[in-house]
Amino acid sequence: MKKRNATVAVIGAGDFIGGEIAKKFASEGFTVFAGRRNGDKLAPLVKEIEAAGGEIQARSLDARKEEEIISFLNDADKHAPLDVCIFNIGANVNFPILDTTERVFRKVWEMACYSGFLAGREAARLMLPRGQGNIFFTGATASLRGGSGYAAFASAKFGLRAVAQAMARELGPKNIHVAHLIIDSGVDTEWVRQRRLEALGPNALDDPDLLMPPASVAASYWQLYQQPKSAWTFEMEIRPFGEKW
Amino acid sequence: MKKRNATVAVIGAGDFIGGEIAKKFASEGFTVFAGRRNGDKLAPLVKEIEAAGGEIQARSLDARKEEEIISFLNDADKHAPLDVCIFNIGANVNFPILDTTERVFRKVWEMACYSGFLAGREAARLMLPRGQGNIFFTGATASLRGGSGYAAFASAKFGLRAVAQAMARELGPKNIHVAHLIIDSGVDTEWVRQRRLEALGPNALDDPDLLMPPASVAASYWQLYQQPKSAWTFEMEIRPFGEKW
Amino acid sequence: MKKRNATVAVIGAGDFIGGEIAKKFASEGFTVFAGRRNGDKLAPLVKEIEAAGGEIQARSLDARKEEEIISFLNDADKHAPLDVCIFNIGANVNFPILDTTERVFRKVWEMACYSGFLAGREAARLMLPRGQGNIFFTGATASLRGGSGYAAFASAKFGLRAVAQAMARELGPKNIHVAHLIIDSGVDTEWVRQRRLEALGPNALDDPDLLMPPASVAASYWQLYQQPKSAWTFEMEIRPFGEKW
Amino acid sequence: MKKRNATVAVIGAGDFIGGEIAKKFASEGFTVFAGRRNGDKLAPLVKEIEAAGGEIQARSLDARKEEEIISFLNDADKHAPLDVCIFNIGANVNFPILDTTERVFRKVWEMACYSGFLAGREAARLMLPRGQGNIFFTGATASLRGGSGYAAFASAKFGLRAVAQAMARELGPKNIHVAHLIIDSGVDTEWVRQRRLEALGPNALDDPDLLMPPASVAASYWQLYQQPKSAWTFEMEIRPFGEKW
Repeated sequence: MKKRNATVAVIGAGDFIGGEIAKKFASEGFTVFAGRRNGDKLAPLVKEIEAAGGEIQARSLDARKEEEIISFLNDADKHAPLDVCIFNIGANVNFPILDTTERVFRKVWEMACYSGFLAGREAARLMLPRGQGNIFFTGATASLRGGSGYAAFASAKFGLRAVAQAMARELGPKNIHVAHLIIDSGVDTEWVRQRRLEALGPNALDDPDLLMPPASVAASYWQLYQQPKSAWTFEMEIRPFGEKW
Repeated sequence: MKKRNATVAVIGAGDFIGGEIAKKFASEGFTVFAGRRNGDKLAPLVKEIEAAGGEIQARSLDARKEEEIISFLNDADKHAPLDVCIFNIGANVNFPILDTTERVFRKVWEMACYSGFLAGREAARLMLPRGQGNIFFTGATASLRGGSGYAAFASAKFGLRAVAQAMARELGPKNIHVAHLIIDSGVDTEWVRQRRLEALGPNALDDPDLLMPPASVAASYWQLYQQPKSAWTFEMEIRPFGEKW
Repeated sequence: MKKRNATVAVIGAGDFIGGEIAKKFASEGFTVFAGRRNGDKLAPLVKEIEAAGGEIQARSLDARKEEEIISFLNDADKHAPLDVCIFNIGANVNFPILDTTERVFRKVWEMACYSGFLAGREAARLMLPRGQGNIFFTGATASLRGGSGYAAFASAKFGLRAVAQAMARELGPKNIHVAHLIIDSGVDTEWVRQRRLEALGPNALDDPDLLMPPASVAASYWQLYQQPKSAWTFEMEIRPFGEKW
Repeated sequence: MKKRNATVAVIGAGDFIGGEIAKKFASEGFTVFAGRRNGDKLAPLVKEIEAAGGEIQARSLDARKEEEIISFLNDADKHAPLDVCIFNIGANVNFPILDTTERVFRKVWEMACYSGFLAGREAARLMLPRGQGNIFFTGATASLRGGSGYAAFASAKFGLRAVAQAMARELGPKNIHVAHLIIDSGVDTEWVRQRRLEALGPNALDDPDLLMPPASVAASYWQLYQQPKSAWTFEMEIRPFGEKW
């Protein structure tokens, strides 16, 4: 692996998508700055990446705190120029409208939209003076559709998409690639598997490709990263071949 | 004018659109409950509606405060059944992303999205036991497009649209008509007129129909209200005939 | 009924939607020019409208023939100025892609898209010199979504929507109101009722408002017609309150 | 270069995008079947690909003729299994609506939509028995927006997008990857360069990355081809970093 003098910040480096993104970019020679609420939980990821010869810094990060975002990204940028910032925090909840408390509505927005704005803005602040960089946001089906029960979640995801669009239109001409990846499917996790079995019966997992492995999401981000500036994608959606849409 | 035993709540009863909505529904026999930040500023509207034989209650209302929304809508509903709730608060700002402070981002969201969620939810709480009602939200061009500089405003408007969609899908089958009206134009106000003159020269106002009179917005809400439940519109956009889009 | 010196052309004046549109505009004092493939089938509609004191001219019309469209609309315009042209021909078919013959694909396009282009263009030709008019197109769910099996139908409906958009953007500033009404539901016909009963059981029709009566579509066109030029809608969708979307 | 036992059909193998697609897939070891109206014009492409050690068959093809499409694709499939079919015919014209003849409207549709349907359907017929394959369609800004003057072109492009959607929903679960790539920009050709210079002055070409090189389009198709079936993209758009949108 050829080391690069560049860092990737992964905000929301959970056990699934975020972790796979970290592994992919580490394997391509980036230093990964991985942040999640409880940084201790990043230990297995650190171990795996370092065992493979990669470089990673794990941090506890409450992405809803402006000063934490600033310090997390500045640390990354001091280590080596921040080349990519990926915002990957979700907060999927479903409640009937009358049961959607103001606390849930606000918290989901803070996690899935407000912190994405903070991360995007601070990444841009570091990238603009160098005239290059990549800021990627993870979207979902709910980024495009407010389904019954999703007032809180869809509102936050719609809002994050607007942030991404506004930043892409302002920063594209300044050579910052802003993109929004819509994951239109359940990602393959133990929890999703259980729900499939309950809903669809014992054969529900016969074709493993009906679930999206987190690594496929990471591969899509890598594709976006590789695009030349003469042909950037702002938005693409991914789903497994058998998914209804 | 035939009086109805029904109230209309107008949240964001400003000098332009909100005021015209109030006048339209008052002229159709509804009692209007009009709320805006500084209720004293509603005095001219009250005077005008009462002079025309209509009925209106003016209230100071900080729509970002859950308890104020609850009490405002409950008061309206005690007066006479709450038949229509129209959420009409905007917060149009434009800043480069680096100059969009977390305070602005949060405040715009609280005004234009969070308070709309509170209003819609509390209106639904009052309407559902009776199995009927109408909840309308005012959208804008920025509900569909995150333009450069509009990270805060578009994020809030996208988010409000998601709330409206989720509520429409959940509440439609329960006979609550939820709709989202997209105003794809500047509304005719003194401020918009001045900007047009500066941008386009002394002939910019020759055709008055190039600006959208607030009363036209009110007329659109009235059209939505009149739709039978067998043919409801969730979303429509309005713009003056000469508008570029 | 006050007679107007104006005609409405209804292209695709079938037994359901088209017929109701004709009745609505006739009842408002317009002379209706109604065209459908076999004009003899218009006899009951003519009888009903005339019995109510309205005025209607029924014509056989193959809307895929340029010269027939031209002569139909010119006849209408000679009778009295053509004020409204409503294109209402559908061609809903569903085939797996391998079974979609080139003949079906072409014919559906000719009926549902190409003839709409001809009608819109020729209506515009008559309206532009007077600087006013209304051109409305009937859309469907398939105008926005290409579902499995709908390659032919959705392709034609997408194409018609593009025609409507291009015309609205060109002709709006010339005071021609072009609109596209999306009917996101089955309309209440005997055929739809039978399919509901088969699919959903004997209670499927208990709430008649779950089906959209053709008159509701007509009412929506009448709402679009009444909009002032300072606040035109290009696109709105209608569906019954209980419809899934 | 490692040869593959697979063919790629490029329908609309013009001097720019189509040619670059052909070169890219040839360089990856596919045999390319390239079709364009006048097959003689493919001579330079054949020469270039063969000089690089690639394999290509050049054919004259009128893609609006069902029998020609069938025979072209069957020939390709007999050579080696048809793995990818790329439909790349455009027909960009702009006329005021009154000047859009029925002949132009029909011809643009036949070139840009109808022939795409034929190509997609026949490719699917060959791929389905093997249970794998890739069918990609080239879209444009006009696939999503019917601008003034674009009734014919946008109608065809909207229609093609519907075909692609319907096929993707039907064929995805059968392991055929159907995708629609939206090129939201002028591609870098001599003609586009001249228009830029005329419109924007002598510095209009200072940054070559403001124009999209045809090879970038080819690279995007290659990215789509490489996606695993657990994470397919149906639609993505590409534009140069400085493009307004």
